[in-house]
Amino acid sequence: MPQNNITLDEIAEFFREKDNFVLICHKRPDGDTLGSALALRRALEYMDKKAEIICANTPSPNNEFLFDGEYFPAFDPEDMNGIPVSVDVASEELLGDLQPEWGGKIMLKIDHHETSDDFAKLNYTDPTAAACGEIIFDLVGLLGVPYDVCAEPLYAAISSDTGGFRYSNTTSRTHRAAAELLDAGAENAFIDHMLYESRTQSEIRALTAAYASMRYYLDGRVAMVVITNDDKKRLNLREEDLGIISPITREISGVIVGITMKQSRVDPTKFKISVRSEPGFPANELCAAFGGGGHPCAAGAEIPAANAKVAAALVLKHITASGDGLAVTD
Amino acid sequence: MPQNNITLDEIAEFFREKDNFVLICHKRPDGDTLGSALALRRALEYMDKKAEIICANTPSPNNEFLFDGEYFPAFDPEDMNGIPVSVDVASEELLGDLQPEWGGKIMLKIDHHETSDDFAKLNYTDPTAAACGEIIFDLVGLLGVPYDVCAEPLYAAISSDTGGFRYSNTTSRTHRAAAELLDAGAENAFIDHMLYESRTQSEIRALTAAYASMRYYLDGRVAMVVITNDDKKRLNLREEDLGIISPITREISGVIVGITMKQSRVDPTKFKISVRSEPGFPANELCAAFGGGGHPCAAGAEIPAANAKVAAALVLKHITASGDGLAVTD
Repeated sequence: MPQNNITLDEIAEFFREKDNFVLICHKRPDGDTLGSALALRRALEYMDKKAEIICANTPSPNNEFLFDGEYFPAFDPEDMNGIPVSVDVASEELLGDLQPEWGGKIMLKIDHHETSDDFAKLNYTDPTAAACGEIIFDLVGLLGVPYDVCAEPLYAAISSDTGGFRYSNTTSRTHRAAAELLDAGAENAFIDHMLYESRTQSEIRALTAAYASMRYYLDGRVAMVVITNDDKKRLNLREEDLGIISPITREISGVIVGITMKQSRVDPTKFKISVRSEPGFPANELCAAFGGGGHPCAAGAEIPAANAKVAAALVLKHITASGDGLAVTD
Repeated sequence: MPQNNITLDEIAEFFREKDNFVLICHKRPDGDTLGSALALRRALEYMDKKAEIICANTPSPNNEFLFDGEYFPAFDPEDMNGIPVSVDVASEELLGDLQPEWGGKIMLKIDHHETSDDFAKLNYTDPTAAACGEIIFDLVGLLGVPYDVCAEPLYAAISSDTGGFRYSNTTSRTHRAAAELLDAGAENAFIDHMLYESRTQSEIRALTAAYASMRYYLDGRVAMVVITNDDKKRLNLREEDLGIISPITREISGVIVGITMKQSRVDPTKFKISVRSEPGFPANELCAAFGGGGHPCAAGAEIPAANAKVAAALVLKHITASGDGLAVTD
């Protein structure tokens, strides 16, 4: 459980007193970490402070629009000497390739994850915030910076981490922040279009293969899709095209356990499963049976098997009907 | 352009003064018309008034949850003698099979569509509301009814008509209403799961066929999916399973015109197209070339052709590249 040793008011004071910051995003950055950093940089520049953003990886295609025409440095930590502040980084390991240089040096951590390490000197975690962007929203208000300065990245951060206000983490606080940001000029339709309606043609090919492979088990309570190396080769799919597949099994009425299975390119006798489940079915226990782990409703593991059919049978063997629901065998 | 002859304050007074209402939804009801009617009925019952809900059609599977355990009468207009009030009904024709009995008799119309007929005695249309539910939200406030009485159906109404707060009609007013309703206890995660993540297995089969048929034209600026009668038969698809397909072409990066084509069961030499486009490309003009019509960004038409291939070629012939964009030929 994270222990705060600084308040949000004190964080505002920290930014008011000091100058020259390095805002650090987590590796493989999403809209929340990027939007939070960008909004904070704009707020600090509005206050005539210097701030740079760094990250172990460049933004993915669907988040590139955030930095349209705005400076995003290549990963080059040697030139940086500002005060290191991390946003939306739950553990030092999530600094990725920045860890060797910046690990142990973070001055201030601002985060919203329930399981978050206190790896910085000053640690602030608010797990009631649906997105780190919600915390930055409050901080910008405390700094007295008008919201039109950073409405777009803050809206993108909040929309990203709430699945466009559809996930269960969305609260009235989330909607009130969104309302303020729209009033301040955030072009919500454009941002949500970029975040949620900008699939690439290769992502569409990945979806096509996934839907074609959809199978149901145990009276439709389990759904599974499989992507083999043959699929990847035949359809020219990259690993990053496959992220889009994970939610589709769970969107089906009656499905309690949705499984996405992908053959490993490196070792074709290994099959990586991502399990998404309704509350009640322990996705983490199912994955633990194969040496994996995760959360009760979202977990993963790697299964050694001669082919996808064998791997699927191995997984299903561990899921049994139990009353109205499903359970995991020992 | 609709002309209001009653204010929202006067509507509140109308409901306070009278008793015994029949709340009428539009045909093929969506979450907005059903949620608005249900919320209004609960508010009126809280005020010790009588109110019934009628509609030409029963709720579709993904909206059934709204009426879980709550009375929704079979279509039986003869037994009803309350004051007729329509919600979210833009024209009398949209009463559907209720029109012969109730046409010309609507006392009060509450609507939010930009093009809305003043077919009632008392007409109120607020086109700045993203959903009729937003108007009912304000009305419930004016009536002094606490929001916990009707938070769920109001939230469902507003989420339905804004695509879960992702469509461009979403405003800060929308988010502020949602915030109030969450504070009043609306279970947003459950409602959004029911509205957006409850696809049936036959809808999944329809999606599978649609993705498999996806083709790109004019450098990926046009995408088309085709569902033939063979597909419908082979996959056991009902017409109502096909609604889920319309958005998928437009979700692809770079696509300006997305076309969904369906062969007619009644006359297999007719192909119905639904066209969705980015602002700038006139979907309505394209469809007008085939005797159809609609809005600039969403239109439809029926094309006579020997087979799907011929129909697709006919449509594409009318779309030509023009500079960076696309245009419709004469």
